[in-house]
Amino acid sequence: MAKTNPGRFFEDYQLGQVIDHAVPRTIKMGERALYHALYPARHALHSSDAFAQSCGLPFSPLDDLVTFHTVFGKTVPDVSLNAVANLGYAEGRWITPLWPGDTITATSEVIGLKENSNGKTGVVWVRTTGRNQHGETLLSYVRWVMVRKHHLDVPAPETVIPDLKPALEVGDLVIPEGLDFTGYDFALAGEPHRLGDYEVGETIDHVDGVTVEEAEHMMATRLWQNTAKVHFDATFRPDGQRLIYGGHVISMARALSFNGLANAQMIVGLNGGAHANPCFSGQTIKAWSQVLDKAETDRPGVGAIRLRLVATKGGAPFELKGEDGKYLSDVLLDLDYWALMPV
Amino acid sequence: MAKTNPGRFFEDYQLGQVIDHAVPRTIKMGERALYHALYPARHALHSSDAFAQSCGLPFSPLDDLVTFHTVFGKTVPDVSLNAVANLGYAEGRWITPLWPGDTITATSEVIGLKENSNGKTGVVWVRTTGRNQHGETLLSYVRWVMVRKHHLDVPAPETVIPDLKPALEVGDLVIPEGLDFTGYDFALAGEPHRLGDYEVGETIDHVDGVTVEEAEHMMATRLWQNTAKVHFDATFRPDGQRLIYGGHVISMARALSFNGLANAQMIVGLNGGAHANPCFSGQTIKAWSQVLDKAETDRPGVGAIRLRLVATKGGAPFELKGEDGKYLSDVLLDLDYWALMPV
Amino acid sequence: MAKTNPGRFFEDYQLGQVIDHAVPRTIKMGERALYHALYPARHALHSSDAFAQSCGLPFSPLDDLVTFHTVFGKTVPDVSLNAVANLGYAEGRWITPLWPGDTITATSEVIGLKENSNGKTGVVWVRTTGRNQHGETLLSYVRWVMVRKHHLDVPAPETVIPDLKPALEVGDLVIPEGLDFTGYDFALAGEPHRLGDYEVGETIDHVDGVTVEEAEHMMATRLWQNTAKVHFDATFRPDGQRLIYGGHVISMARALSFNGLANAQMIVGLNGGAHANPCFSGQTIKAWSQVLDKAETDRPGVGAIRLRLVATKGGAPFELKGEDGKYLSDVLLDLDYWALMPV
Repeated sequence: MAKTNPGRFFEDYQLGQVIDHAVPRTIKMGERALYHALYPARHALHSSDAFAQSCGLPFSPLDDLVTFHTVFGKTVPDVSLNAVANLGYAEGRWITPLWPGDTITATSEVIGLKENSNGKTGVVWVRTTGRNQHGETLLSYVRWVMVRKHHLDVPAPETVIPDLKPALEVGDLVIPEGLDFTGYDFALAGEPHRLGDYEVGETIDHVDGVTVEEAEHMMATRLWQNTAKVHFDATFRPDGQRLIYGGHVISMARALSFNGLANAQMIVGLNGGAHANPCFSGQTIKAWSQVLDKAETDRPGVGAIRLRLVATKGGAPFELKGEDGKYLSDVLLDLDYWALMPV
Repeated sequence: MAKTNPGRFFEDYQLGQVIDHAVPRTIKMGERALYHALYPARHALHSSDAFAQSCGLPFSPLDDLVTFHTVFGKTVPDVSLNAVANLGYAEGRWITPLWPGDTITATSEVIGLKENSNGKTGVVWVRTTGRNQHGETLLSYVRWVMVRKHHLDVPAPETVIPDLKPALEVGDLVIPEGLDFTGYDFALAGEPHRLGDYEVGETIDHVDGVTVEEAEHMMATRLWQNTAKVHFDATFRPDGQRLIYGGHVISMARALSFNGLANAQMIVGLNGGAHANPCFSGQTIKAWSQVLDKAETDRPGVGAIRLRLVATKGGAPFELKGEDGKYLSDVLLDLDYWALMPV
Repeated sequence: MAKTNPGRFFEDYQLGQVIDHAVPRTIKMGERALYHALYPARHALHSSDAFAQSCGLPFSPLDDLVTFHTVFGKTVPDVSLNAVANLGYAEGRWITPLWPGDTITATSEVIGLKENSNGKTGVVWVRTTGRNQHGETLLSYVRWVMVRKHHLDVPAPETVIPDLKPALEVGDLVIPEGLDFTGYDFALAGEPHRLGDYEVGETIDHVDGVTVEEAEHMMATRLWQNTAKVHFDATFRPDGQRLIYGGHVISMARALSFNGLANAQMIVGLNGGAHANPCFSGQTIKAWSQVLDKAETDRPGVGAIRLRLVATKGGAPFELKGEDGKYLSDVLLDLDYWALMPV
């Protein structure tokens, strides 16, 4: 019996199946320091214990995307080792902040299956839940991937396509306990713009750019224990290029968005996302955002802003799709998320 | 109204103006580990809690240059986003060590202004102060930069050039509370040379070299939340090169100086410094030092040594300037600082 | 008197000499985070406090190779600065786990000397011991290197070749206090294979590969304060290449071996090892293992497995030496070690 993990194929998934992902991970301040070294992250609530305390939190939680990447990394050996494509995200909700010292585990439930008409691949929907050592949910999200079939003669499963929300509503969002933006220090945070200063439809060019390197994206991706060969092994693809983990682009774009959205402090909802084109070393990532929605919450001074975050490797800001409805070739990422911001 | 930070232009500064820099930062052991990964730093007092305790400190403080870089990084969006050149440093004093867990904030006061005769640029002098969460001063230094004017028709301000000391005297230096070198372990520290073994005028070739990489200098510079585009965006300069943050060269040269100055444990004063030539990825940094002065202090066993630290990218050691009085093209850095060393 | 360290030459070693290595080092969680960023390390006991606690430990110790690299790094200025070749390892035993916050010091005793017949070089055997701040031994191992003579007219010392075990026996291994694998969670650990599932002689292809970059191996090697010029200075070798520290290959191969040996949790013995060929940036490291021996221990549920770990930069798995008995040119490392695994 082979000792190595061949990964699951499409016929290995059943509706309702629950997969406990391996290798729990304790996250502390070392991971936070690395996050700041790998991305130009400057949101004050994730940078300073004192600032977080002034917002009602006991101290500074890890960046919300650290939770996402760590949980996502755990799912790779079970969900996407034989994936052909990462198709989408939905209903992502951050429930509990990630505190230094927490140990993360993750499980996924198969909530949808659809074999493709070619009989060689299928789409698998999973709802993944990351938990801390107390069993509290840190993050829950739905992801769907296209996976190869190994035994083509296995009959197709009944098609079940989950009913997913096109976007979370503000009432779906969970706001960290104690969060209070009434004493928010805009000068320390870096920008004066509050929720009321943003208009739905408004676009923001984040101006800055970062040229990415092989060593960086590999260190970032390993940090989350994401093992997909295509990110690390230059002999894996015929073109000799290492495909950059899509999450590296998400974190880079989110960090760049500080310049114009410094007060969009915490990510609490992921409505959807597309990795529009592959990203490779040597490309220069820039970002722009569009305000999709905004709302007040029941917490003191805390508003919610729904944003489209677009990462590009060139081209003009605010251009997304061509006349054919397809993403332009310079667009890397189109992400739809909710963040918390002082009203 | 544009949401992104355009940076300040020359006409935006007024004498006496105080700028509170954004994004406080909590520094812990993760940053220390990264400092050791990014630079060949081996000074024992910053490497070992036990060694620091044998020198009378509660535990090992972060490298003095971590304080400098973090405070410097905070100033970039307000001081040097539109800078044409970083002209000099003076009167830098480390007042309180940086302990793991401390949160750093920074403010700058404009102490000098001089519009250039071309009417298109001017020089701005700022005294920057970094503080910890208790309001104690960690570091204070003066820096002056040449900044572009945006509105050329704004009248020139009155010229005020601050009166700066060419070098700190030993009495200006603040020695960390409790520091005691009477029980100093030279074997553990790595070299037998005490203050009495160095002569004023003596030069030391630090022998070792490090070839620098894009991923390293970008990680280092991001770690200090320094956002200057020129360090990260390969599309920013016409030549497609990323300019390496001058502080990266300072830290690299200081770490290399261990070999010959292993007992120059803590930096307590910065007298001046020039980034003589730009540094780019692929260059090999070497360093040499010259003893400029030395003195005893009122603390047990603690002496002070004033050093010129020169970083080069080639050429012979101990060569600095040509017959025209200009830095040789291989010289990257000429730094003048005070360090503490057992007598 | 030159202030820099010229390193020891062959004639500078005497039998029985004890060398206290410089620069003690405190290791905390930052180093652990970096270890996960630099290597695809996933062994659960070193990844999660909660998992380590379920195995009877107070929390997760640092990876056993962190201990090895840190101790090894301390020895470089005294043992291998003028080394021509790193010839071998033997009798390596991990005695006490490395806990976050521990301060490491190291000493070496010269236990063998043999001048080569050319009169220009000699072989030095040292037994190196790494200790924590309590004086407890963390790790002890024998290493032998070929070192240049500086003064060729110094008479050859009496030849003493130490009597070293070809391999440790299971009774030589020290098992961490409290370790108990009776409640071991194979699903969380990532693989179902227990000691009983492996057969002596069995080979395992670890499948995954990692292409290595200059920035990564330099950061890793610096992290252990290893100062050998050849790893950092591209001007040092005539071919302009930086030789990758052999320990970087060890850690990379060990991390890759997770895929097939996820339950070989802790390294407790190093029987021998050869760096068969040099490794350079741009090469893709893969790994395979062979089971050499296995045994039960007196601890609950804890077995020991002796493994050959081979790292390659190409070629087919399971090929090691040519008909001439020499390592094939694609083989980078041939390591023989004992690890602990649930029975």
